Amino acid sequence: MKNILFALVLIVGIVAVSFHAENKEKSDPVIASKAVTQVAVIVKDIDKARNAWAELLGVEVPQVSIAESHFSRPTLYKGNPSDAKAKLAFFSMGNLQIELIQPLGGKSTWQDYMDTYGEGIHHMAFAVKDIDGIEKRFEMQGNPTIQRGGWDGGAYSYIDASNNLGCILELLENYR
Amino acid sequence: MKNILFALVLIVGIVAVSFHAENKEKSDPVIASKAVTQVAVIVKDIDKARNAWAELLGVEVPQVSIAESHFSRPTLYKGNPSDAKAKLAFFSMGNLQIELIQPLGGKSTWQDYMDTYGEGIHHMAFAVKDIDGIEKRFEMQGNPTIQRGGWDGGAYSYIDASNNLGCILELLENYR
Repeated sequence: MKNILFALVLIVGIVAVSFHAENKEKSDPVIASKAVTQVAVIVKDIDKARNAWAELLGVEVPQVSIAESHFSRPTLYKGNPSDAKAKLAFFSMGNLQIELIQPLGGKSTWQDYMDTYGEGIHHMAFAVKDIDGIEKRFEMQGNPTIQRGGWDGGAYSYIDASNNLGCILELLENYR
Repeated sequence: MKNILFALVLIVGIVAVSFHAENKEKSDPVIASKAVTQVAVIVKDIDKARNAWAELLGVEVPQVSIAESHFSRPTLYKGNPSDAKAKLAFFSMGNLQIELIQPLGGKSTWQDYMDTYGEGIHHMAFAVKDIDGIEKRFEMQGNPTIQRGGWDGGAYSYIDASNNLGCILELLENYR
């Protein structure tokens, strides 16, 4: 009787620990957000592209801004400083942003993509908290950071997840 | 005095017609929806990819379905019948679907993409009404339909908008 009771307690204990481990794994994913915040298209000519997209969607033609290294988080490409620049234009859709990116030279994942594939969809983005910690978790799983940088108010990191997820992801953290 | 009045009426008339024309254009875009409903990634091995994405997002591994020609709208690739197939898996995010596509041969835009670029983001999709009419509007603007087909309950068309918008778009019409 004592042995049966002991066995029962042991089984209950094992089941409880297993459940805990499983739940812990499920509740701590690398990407906690359940929303894609941005889809980005590399284009050769941002003026032609932003006009065509605006006409397609029936919206105003968005302004162009310049992405470049910012003192708050200087641009690194494969770990080395980069003076890469790009022209950007954003369309605010109901559920996310469509971003157009025209690479302007310098070493970047934008220029890489253009040189290798031409125009096309470069990444989808997720909003995150603790961007540096999440970068590390990706890296430990074989998904290196290909480029990182920041702007006045935020930080971005491009994760080359092509080996495991089939594409590049962007992490975005806003500090405002 | 009469001439000045006539000129004034004429100017007001021209301005009114211009406004009307501009508003009409703005209110009749090719894509009326302001939401991207899907982002799709071409992958080599859907089992590896769906497990990796499920772990990334902390969700259940989704089932795999097969895309193939359906009598309701037989698959056409560049206007010709195609027996192309693909394995599909879908992740329901808060604001859209992430679709994984493993091409299984036959002539398709999926196989084209894999053969040309390898893995990567193939398209973003918009929900539409009157898919055939919208295909025609795209075609008239120099964006041909590269592939079309259907399934039990819906229709899809891939628009090769790479010359004007920098990427492939998918139109999706659900009949249920």
